[in-house]
Amino acid sequence: MRAGEALEGASGTSEHGGVTVSWEVGIDIGGTGSRLRGAPVGPDAGSIEPIELTGDPVRVVSRRSDAPDVVGDLCRRFAEKAGPATTAAAAVGMRGLRSMTLSRTLSPFDVHDAITGALGTRRTAVASDTITAHLGALQGRSGATLNVGSGAVAIGDDDLGRLHIADGLGPLIGDNGGGSWIGEEGLRAAARASYHDTRGSRRLLEEATEILGPPETWESKLRDAPDRVRVLAEFAPVVVRAAAAGDIVCQGILAGSAELLTDCLAAVLGRPGVRQVAATTGSLMALGSPLRAAVHGLMPVKRVGVELVDAAGTPLDGALLLARRLVEDPEFPSYRPLLTVRTAE
Amino acid sequence: MRAGEALEGASGTSEHGGVTVSWEVGIDIGGTGSRLRGAPVGPDAGSIEPIELTGDPVRVVSRRSDAPDVVGDLCRRFAEKAGPATTAAAAVGMRGLRSMTLSRTLSPFDVHDAITGALGTRRTAVASDTITAHLGALQGRSGATLNVGSGAVAIGDDDLGRLHIADGLGPLIGDNGGGSWIGEEGLRAAARASYHDTRGSRRLLEEATEILGPPETWESKLRDAPDRVRVLAEFAPVVVRAAAAGDIVCQGILAGSAELLTDCLAAVLGRPGVRQVAATTGSLMALGSPLRAAVHGLMPVKRVGVELVDAAGTPLDGALLLARRLVEDPEFPSYRPLLTVRTAE
Repeated sequence: MRAGEALEGASGTSEHGGVTVSWEVGIDIGGTGSRLRGAPVGPDAGSIEPIELTGDPVRVVSRRSDAPDVVGDLCRRFAEKAGPATTAAAAVGMRGLRSMTLSRTLSPFDVHDAITGALGTRRTAVASDTITAHLGALQGRSGATLNVGSGAVAIGDDDLGRLHIADGLGPLIGDNGGGSWIGEEGLRAAARASYHDTRGSRRLLEEATEILGPPETWESKLRDAPDRVRVLAEFAPVVVRAAAAGDIVCQGILAGSAELLTDCLAAVLGRPGVRQVAATTGSLMALGSPLRAAVHGLMPVKRVGVELVDAAGTPLDGALLLARRLVEDPEFPSYRPLLTVRTAE
Repeated sequence: MRAGEALEGASGTSEHGGVTVSWEVGIDIGGTGSRLRGAPVGPDAGSIEPIELTGDPVRVVSRRSDAPDVVGDLCRRFAEKAGPATTAAAAVGMRGLRSMTLSRTLSPFDVHDAITGALGTRRTAVASDTITAHLGALQGRSGATLNVGSGAVAIGDDDLGRLHIADGLGPLIGDNGGGSWIGEEGLRAAARASYHDTRGSRRLLEEATEILGPPETWESKLRDAPDRVRVLAEFAPVVVRAAAAGDIVCQGILAGSAELLTDCLAAVLGRPGVRQVAATTGSLMALGSPLRAAVHGLMPVKRVGVELVDAAGTPLDGALLLARRLVEDPEFPSYRPLLTVRTAE
């Protein structure tokens, strides 16, 4: 805890119920809901309870994300509870930041403005949830995290606090081994079973036909689907189940996925100054999943001596740690498009 | 030559310059131009010259293909030369029929109507150029053809004249090993070089950056490109060149492609009654190409005893052979969406 140091230069110190306190605020937003946690810091922080709030999910309406509204609403409700001008820094982690920024569905600066408008602080960060998940998983310590959901990305930070990223490049040219990659390979294997006896998976052909209809319609259905990546990613668990049931084609797909995922994590662990500790997060790395077992089994082959740990905290924990970093290091750099930092006084 | 048989029941016999003749008409249309060849058949056919015409390329305007206009124009010009009501059958081969039919850019029945309107014949076929290329390559004899351009498809016909197709399912779920598949794998390898030292190709990263700009823009450029498949397929020759120059990642991509392509061809050769003779066609199977060498080298491993032959004719030859088949066999079946046949008298 470096709160004493942290408060030097921080503008948010104030009286709160008669004691001197400032706040660090972490926010986690996404399609299923949003959460804010405010942590009191300063000489009298011990006597103050953290503040926790839940809010609306983020929606995209008319090709615009309402993330600034969701964040602004949470921050205003927090300010009412905490009193005005008492926030040293605030950080938001959000799902889909990269793709929404690149497709101009969201400008992260609108989120910065929403925070500053509601809380006064000009130390703000807007991060992809892959970054906050990483910080939360390792509790802010150096090391690397592999996040595997619909996409796939590895993030590490070195002993100088610099971020290192591998993949997470999107479903068309990257996200190698992630959920949409597995789903696409699965659908290809299903389609292949319509003309090849052994290179395709009959089991997947049957399952995909139940979900998507006749195989000759798949190509046009996928081409016209605005949420193609979601459709593909939702097929990944079908591939995982078929592999577990003995389907050798699906086992091959998961072996290929594990190979790509461990390459991705190994790339980050290979950067100078990154501690050889790694956690895996995301829906496809859930405890007990065979893909997680494959990745954890293969990692020591790729990086001898790497220590694999369970994730110690959540993306919300990570957002709060990111707010603390902004206080500790006014020069904390952006890493666009996954992280934008404002530290103007 | 079964023209004597063929003419029984054919309505197109007529006088042509004082001799008894009817015509079989083949047409090949595509984005670079169109061609028609009329072959005289019947007792006096030997004294008549074939008729050859060239016409406009096919264009898509306002999401509609003008193929019916292009075909109608060629047929009217042919009818002027050949005289009215003298065509026994006509067949069109065209590039992109499958995807245009599925996306409703074209109804093949409008092409049938254009032929019948101009030539009178009610024996018409509208085929994908993969079918006419197959018929042309093997001169209408049974066997199998592998066509590898932007997509990948294998076609065979058995000793009963039935068609058998493998793959050609489109770039999202099939076309395994074809041009857009190779290009996508290449771009993924290029992107991977931005974070992994050995699993990506630095050479491809440099080449792709010259073509597409900085790697972080590739995903959104591809997502927004209406002609994504073309962009990917155009990158395939870059991968082929890099492999020939010793890039081991690209060599791996081509080895994977050859494996998938030979599986595809082997699937068709494995159908009962298909003669064990195969030709390879399409831009990526050009004489001297290393991918062609890899496919031809691997095929005898997958199908012991298969005879690989050079393509003996063009898609236009194949269209003409298809017209002859319609005359020989009034029951010749459709194979949608790659082939629609009308044989109503």
